[in-house]
Amino acid sequence: MSKSMKCLVTGGAGFIASNLVDRLLADGHAVTAYDNFSTGFREFLRPASANPRFTLVEGDTQDMEKMASAMAGCDTVFHLAANADVRFGPEKPRRDLEQNTIATFNVLEAMRKAGVKRIAFSSTSAIYGVAEVIPTPENAPFPVQTSLYGASKLAGEGLIQAYSEAYGIQSYIFRFVSILGDRYHHGHVYDFYKKLKANPLKLDVLGDGTQRKSYLYVQDCVDAIFTVMQKAQNKVNIFNLGTKEFCDVNQSLGWICGHLNVKPEFNYAGGKSGWIGDNPFIFPDCSKVYALGWRPKLTIKEGIIKTLEYIQANEWVLTANPDRARAPQKA
Amino acid sequence: MSKSMKCLVTGGAGFIASNLVDRLLADGHAVTAYDNFSTGFREFLRPASANPRFTLVEGDTQDMEKMASAMAGCDTVFHLAANADVRFGPEKPRRDLEQNTIATFNVLEAMRKAGVKRIAFSSTSAIYGVAEVIPTPENAPFPVQTSLYGASKLAGEGLIQAYSEAYGIQSYIFRFVSILGDRYHHGHVYDFYKKLKANPLKLDVLGDGTQRKSYLYVQDCVDAIFTVMQKAQNKVNIFNLGTKEFCDVNQSLGWICGHLNVKPEFNYAGGKSGWIGDNPFIFPDCSKVYALGWRPKLTIKEGIIKTLEYIQANEWVLTANPDRARAPQKA
Repeated sequence: MSKSMKCLVTGGAGFIASNLVDRLLADGHAVTAYDNFSTGFREFLRPASANPRFTLVEGDTQDMEKMASAMAGCDTVFHLAANADVRFGPEKPRRDLEQNTIATFNVLEAMRKAGVKRIAFSSTSAIYGVAEVIPTPENAPFPVQTSLYGASKLAGEGLIQAYSEAYGIQSYIFRFVSILGDRYHHGHVYDFYKKLKANPLKLDVLGDGTQRKSYLYVQDCVDAIFTVMQKAQNKVNIFNLGTKEFCDVNQSLGWICGHLNVKPEFNYAGGKSGWIGDNPFIFPDCSKVYALGWRPKLTIKEGIIKTLEYIQANEWVLTANPDRARAPQKA
Repeated sequence: MSKSMKCLVTGGAGFIASNLVDRLLADGHAVTAYDNFSTGFREFLRPASANPRFTLVEGDTQDMEKMASAMAGCDTVFHLAANADVRFGPEKPRRDLEQNTIATFNVLEAMRKAGVKRIAFSSTSAIYGVAEVIPTPENAPFPVQTSLYGASKLAGEGLIQAYSEAYGIQSYIFRFVSILGDRYHHGHVYDFYKKLKANPLKLDVLGDGTQRKSYLYVQDCVDAIFTVMQKAQNKVNIFNLGTKEFCDVNQSLGWICGHLNVKPEFNYAGGKSGWIGDNPFIFPDCSKVYALGWRPKLTIKEGIIKTLEYIQANEWVLTANPDRARAPQKA
């Protein structure tokens, strides 16, 4: 994406999205962040706010008209706004529907109204459910959904593909593994850090510790997005984004405890799954993005350490989340 | 499904659903039809209405509370309410989202509220898009959506699968080919009949006539649904419903013109697709349902002739549709 463009990033104040905003600005693009600050942080947009090519529009993805106005003149929409927490689906199923599926529909309608012809979408490897083939390629056997989060993202993918066909929109669908790095503020590294800070002698662990997971460092993730959008030019471009590495929960616990210099007793909840709809092993085959020449710069272990260092230097994210009333309002 | 049960059929006044209602009643079950009569016909429920085991609840699938009340005490929900017309997606994209995706979410929430633990869902072979493998099995390579209709049904499938995982609901997902038979009131046989009645000398045909399609007679479809629900007992059961036969548009035109004894000049619009998102060849592999012992009783040709005979005996469907104001109100 060497040519200067104007883009809008939904959920721009979020973890991955705000890193993307900074990188787009650094590359010389004009960027509008669209966020309702329900889970995003003003703090994450502080560096961007100093840039004259940056605009912030406060709005909800349920507000199609406002999004369409914010998109005026844009070449590309990066749709990253989402309910990103896979674990609470069964408690609040409507949230996934509204914030992932209907929100994506609204983004597409706003694009149609504003005449924007390119979209990049943050999907998830959770849509592979309990995969028949591991590592799981993009054209794996038609999966069965196991989580409301995955189902809501799959619905978003389908909508984007149908809009590409019907309205000539070029689309990039990225199926992320779990992302690590600066501004990370929920997920297992966060949870473990918080628990170990409260009690470094004992740690409750979901499942039996053998759940294998794959991770990607956020700057490597943004590199991959840019590589794909430069080199892949089909109408619909679907890419797994992850590395050729994976780890299990016990390994990552070892790295975390090593870095924090603690030796807790582990108390395993047991079972193969951390929560309902969790999969014991999610490991997408990322050959397709590797074939474009992209390579990750950090290993999973390095990504986890970097993430811990970020949290250590920004402990406000521990108390600011998930109760937004306690978030800092520095911006 | 030999044991007597209580069931609710959404969209019960529709083409396929009303045939299902009649068959369920004939098998001794208690049946509630739930319909808003936006595209269903009261006429189709006239035979059922004479049965003391039949109840009609007029309501919309957007009304979750009303559906939940109507489901009280039910064993099984047959969710057939839908925007079933694949062709007008690009003109009215919100209709597919609301009537297929959000409606399915509401049905699932109503089931959760009412404690119903089994659902059968009318999905579509349109979700295979431009299939990589033909005939296309249920676990074909992960497809890319080409129509808003397909995308909205895929979203419904994903929701149902996730609800099965999260809330212990047993689900039956049926990917239908085009269905023919009594009470058929939209689709290509309907369109051709209507056009030929207006002008038997000349017929406009979408595409180039070589689009291959597969069809299933509605009573064979209901037989297949019953067979699967008796014999398949996984948590999530996904079945293509069609036959091992297909035809192309020119063949079916030959059968239609032969039956109607007309010899029009064909005026082809040209191109491989009939409309945006139409696929030149949809042919699901139905080995899985055949393996359960089910067999269709009618060929495609016989199904088309039966459908023509129904329309000939019920020409009111030609004027009653799609303008509902002109529908008869005999019930």
